[in-house]
Amino acid sequence: MSDRLIYMPLGGAGEIGMNAYVYGYGPAGKERLIVVDLGVTFGDMDSSPGIDLIMADIAWLEANRKRIDAIFITHGHEDHVGAIGLLWDRIGAPIYCRKFTGTLARLKLEERGVQTDALRIVEARPETVTAGPFKVQFVPISHSIPESSAMIIDSPAGRVVHSGDFKLDGTPVVGEAFDPQLWHEIAREGDGVKVLTCDSTNVFSTHPGRSESVLANPIMEFVVAQPQMVIATTFASNVARLKTLADAAVASGRKVCLLGRAMRKMVQAATETGILTQFPATISPEEAAELPRHKVMLIVTGSQGERRAATAQLSRGSYLGLRLAEGDSFLFSSRTIPGNESGVIRIMNQLSEMGVDVFDADDGIYHVSGHANRPDLEAVHDLLKPQILIPMHGEHMHLRAHAKLGTEKGIASVVATNGTMLDLTGSKPRVVDRIETGRLYLDGSVLIGAMDGVVRDRIRMALNGHAMVSVLVDEHDTPFPDAWVETMGLPEQGRSSAPLAQQVENELAEFLERADAKTVADDKKLEDAVRKITRQVTMEEIGKKPEVTVIISRLAP
Amino acid sequence: MSDRLIYMPLGGAGEIGMNAYVYGYGPAGKERLIVVDLGVTFGDMDSSPGIDLIMADIAWLEANRKRIDAIFITHGHEDHVGAIGLLWDRIGAPIYCRKFTGTLARLKLEERGVQTDALRIVEARPETVTAGPFKVQFVPISHSIPESSAMIIDSPAGRVVHSGDFKLDGTPVVGEAFDPQLWHEIAREGDGVKVLTCDSTNVFSTHPGRSESVLANPIMEFVVAQPQMVIATTFASNVARLKTLADAAVASGRKVCLLGRAMRKMVQAATETGILTQFPATISPEEAAELPRHKVMLIVTGSQGERRAATAQLSRGSYLGLRLAEGDSFLFSSRTIPGNESGVIRIMNQLSEMGVDVFDADDGIYHVSGHANRPDLEAVHDLLKPQILIPMHGEHMHLRAHAKLGTEKGIASVVATNGTMLDLTGSKPRVVDRIETGRLYLDGSVLIGAMDGVVRDRIRMALNGHAMVSVLVDEHDTPFPDAWVETMGLPEQGRSSAPLAQQVENELAEFLERADAKTVADDKKLEDAVRKITRQVTMEEIGKKPEVTVIISRLAP
Repeated sequence: MSDRLIYMPLGGAGEIGMNAYVYGYGPAGKERLIVVDLGVTFGDMDSSPGIDLIMADIAWLEANRKRIDAIFITHGHEDHVGAIGLLWDRIGAPIYCRKFTGTLARLKLEERGVQTDALRIVEARPETVTAGPFKVQFVPISHSIPESSAMIIDSPAGRVVHSGDFKLDGTPVVGEAFDPQLWHEIAREGDGVKVLTCDSTNVFSTHPGRSESVLANPIMEFVVAQPQMVIATTFASNVARLKTLADAAVASGRKVCLLGRAMRKMVQAATETGILTQFPATISPEEAAELPRHKVMLIVTGSQGERRAATAQLSRGSYLGLRLAEGDSFLFSSRTIPGNESGVIRIMNQLSEMGVDVFDADDGIYHVSGHANRPDLEAVHDLLKPQILIPMHGEHMHLRAHAKLGTEKGIASVVATNGTMLDLTGSKPRVVDRIETGRLYLDGSVLIGAMDGVVRDRIRMALNGHAMVSVLVDEHDTPFPDAWVETMGLPEQGRSSAPLAQQVENELAEFLERADAKTVADDKKLEDAVRKITRQVTMEEIGKKPEVTVIISRLAP
Repeated sequence: MSDRLIYMPLGGAGEIGMNAYVYGYGPAGKERLIVVDLGVTFGDMDSSPGIDLIMADIAWLEANRKRIDAIFITHGHEDHVGAIGLLWDRIGAPIYCRKFTGTLARLKLEERGVQTDALRIVEARPETVTAGPFKVQFVPISHSIPESSAMIIDSPAGRVVHSGDFKLDGTPVVGEAFDPQLWHEIAREGDGVKVLTCDSTNVFSTHPGRSESVLANPIMEFVVAQPQMVIATTFASNVARLKTLADAAVASGRKVCLLGRAMRKMVQAATETGILTQFPATISPEEAAELPRHKVMLIVTGSQGERRAATAQLSRGSYLGLRLAEGDSFLFSSRTIPGNESGVIRIMNQLSEMGVDVFDADDGIYHVSGHANRPDLEAVHDLLKPQILIPMHGEHMHLRAHAKLGTEKGIASVVATNGTMLDLTGSKPRVVDRIETGRLYLDGSVLIGAMDGVVRDRIRMALNGHAMVSVLVDEHDTPFPDAWVETMGLPEQGRSSAPLAQQVENELAEFLERADAKTVADDKKLEDAVRKITRQVTMEEIGKKPEVTVIISRLAP
């Protein structure tokens, strides 16, 4: 049997978040494997209440653990590295990444009590990692976090460029610029690029992307013009933006105070790894509280409305002794990720109630994206001239639009969603397998399957309320007629003058007094009958059917 | 005591939705009252799971029921008329509105089994309703539903213009154009306009608003260019848009099929009231299924991603025998309301998976707003020259920005949020009272208070899961050691090898065997102790503390 080159996304192809991609080379079913990225996405009340983190179900990797030679992490964003501490034990292969990313990956491992021996810090190309049949290089590329890298994955079947997250930024303020010369070189080496696996996030943005550096002047002018305290929020990992904001503070004679653990951690990591230089000295919240308001700029976490982050806390009152006031100016130097709008808007209104002026980045003056727009994607297609294009890092509509773009250029392009295994050995991609994929939820300290029913039950309780019925059956298999009913999340009273719980108890008493012996003797039958009555009465009383839990206690004979 | 003119919003001033405004005139505390609009807003999973409709708590109106002379409904949108069927009984005053709005209001009353005798259909100005000390006229103004009206409310203390929802559209396709001459007249009559209570929705849109009529050509060109079936969604109540879409269908040789009850109801109401003319004949879903795809255009409900609406159903498979196919084109001729993004995006991706091309209105080519933008608001300020400006119909930041705009023009402007009572008798508004306001939730068939705890408990169950414990105490006040534990919405197993429920039962058995008589005899103490152990064990096992319901059954001695 001949060797083949395969690709399979487990996460990130069908959503923006929880990236996890697999490449393999070898005989079918026995390919040696590498994993690129192990990220998370965040839960929401709509579809995953109570869930902190969501990641790809890697059951397939676990089952093929012995075939895995390495894990590569392209960059330090949560959707690329966030699951490493939670899932590494199930894979157990060495983790390769560059220095800054490594600092963040180490924290992720330590946070979950995982040994960090597997971590290998690698320099950018030309340093090359050999992982089974693959030779892999990290290639600097610009994004909204330092040291983002594309992966050059060379296999006997040809070269794959895995773009990672990127934009074409020649002047990224902090970190490495996009270097067209370098990429020309990569495209020309050997037989050129066989496969481009490519970020699709901004495929619907039709104007060329803008450089991080275009923000410096507008942000500086903004900060200088504000009469009182300025507070700015952005993603903590956007170190270049932190630098731009801090430089604006200095230019306006303000001291910088960083609020939020993630913010301080990120500046520290970037400074220690030598990526961030000339960041102004910061002051503590106590010091900030002592200064005149127009001498202070707070740079804070929580641009997405996260409930426990600094922005939300400030909007609710005070945070670490700091309190916003009428005439302060709050800048959201960020884009609101779809799904987070309600939370962000709530905070903006709370700030407005305090008399704080809120400025957002909707018109693009105070924020640029970290992803390549459509014309930039086309430029990369043209530059690398791949035989095959595989859109990744996108919802289905992004992948589809990106594949269409490739097809129009004559590139063999394919939409491969999570669980789709492609054979890339020939000149065109071929679907050779579709495996069951899914999501793992971190619930408290436990990883559960998205389809386990736990979250489904929570959603049902949230929508329908919950009624609990306790039924007692005596030694002679005779039920006590007075069942006990408790409700949670249900109106206390409906159409009758008596409370809902009592109405249900009355109906149950009538049933239990007459229930036939066969029903009473059978837990399942008794439970079903009690549930049915409970739902019926509740429906009549308040117009909705609750979730019902029946507990039957039988006294030992 | 001298008479005064008062204003108090109960809903709509601090949110976009559930409008309910009160005006009064007379001696303080004895003013005769009128109500303008009684609308709803919609629940969401984040803050109100399981709740269908939300409306202003009108306890204050109920308490002052005898002082209420009339209810006026400005137009037929849900956020202005949606609560009339649910709340009318608590007020009991005549309801005044124009013909088309009246048709919709009648349906709302009938839907809730309320008599419709109170409904009074009124013509536009110059017809005048006398309601206590007020003389009120309906003045046609353009919006995204036919017959939207501003209210001229004349009182002995001067003229109030209550704008309702409006835009300045000289060519609104269906219904009445904005008539500057008419408004000049209104501004010049008598002593002119004392108070302008004004829509603030689009105060952050800095370009002048665009007419509905600018969409006709782009939409026609779009529909003509599509190779297969076209499906378009918009708000059912946007009758002008329905007309524009249907006209485009005819121009491209397509038959129109309306899907969704609200859509058909609205076209019927608009046709019956003579507002909509020359709407093309529609075909049934069965007929649509028989025609070649390029001969069909579906106009469907569900532009906001509503789960049960036609759009969502089509995205999940088929609806009334119609099934979308590769190459079909789906147009969202609508703006996604903040908070609805996730649902809409989910649907767009499901359509993408079917091979349907999705087009949204993000770039404004296929949608215009129904509200006045900032320059339009300024034009209205200039036209009406009010002494006092009260921004309404907005979140706090909208009201604040609108008030700032007024202040800059030298108009006495005030942010008055729900529950703030203003005295408008003098040349400047004066806050004279702040009453407790709140929200009512329609849960199934019951109206509950937002702060009753029902929804709070649902959210807690959704976030934390629910454990139920049944404890039995015998005739001699001795507990049976084997308590029964059921969980819902919790992982079955945590750090131990035994199931979570069993772990809790084991710990409870240990406790119950040794529990002192005083604890066992006291329901409250026993419950607290059992709850505490349940939460502790669950925390150890799965890292989170659930909601706990304890049911204690005592056998009669």
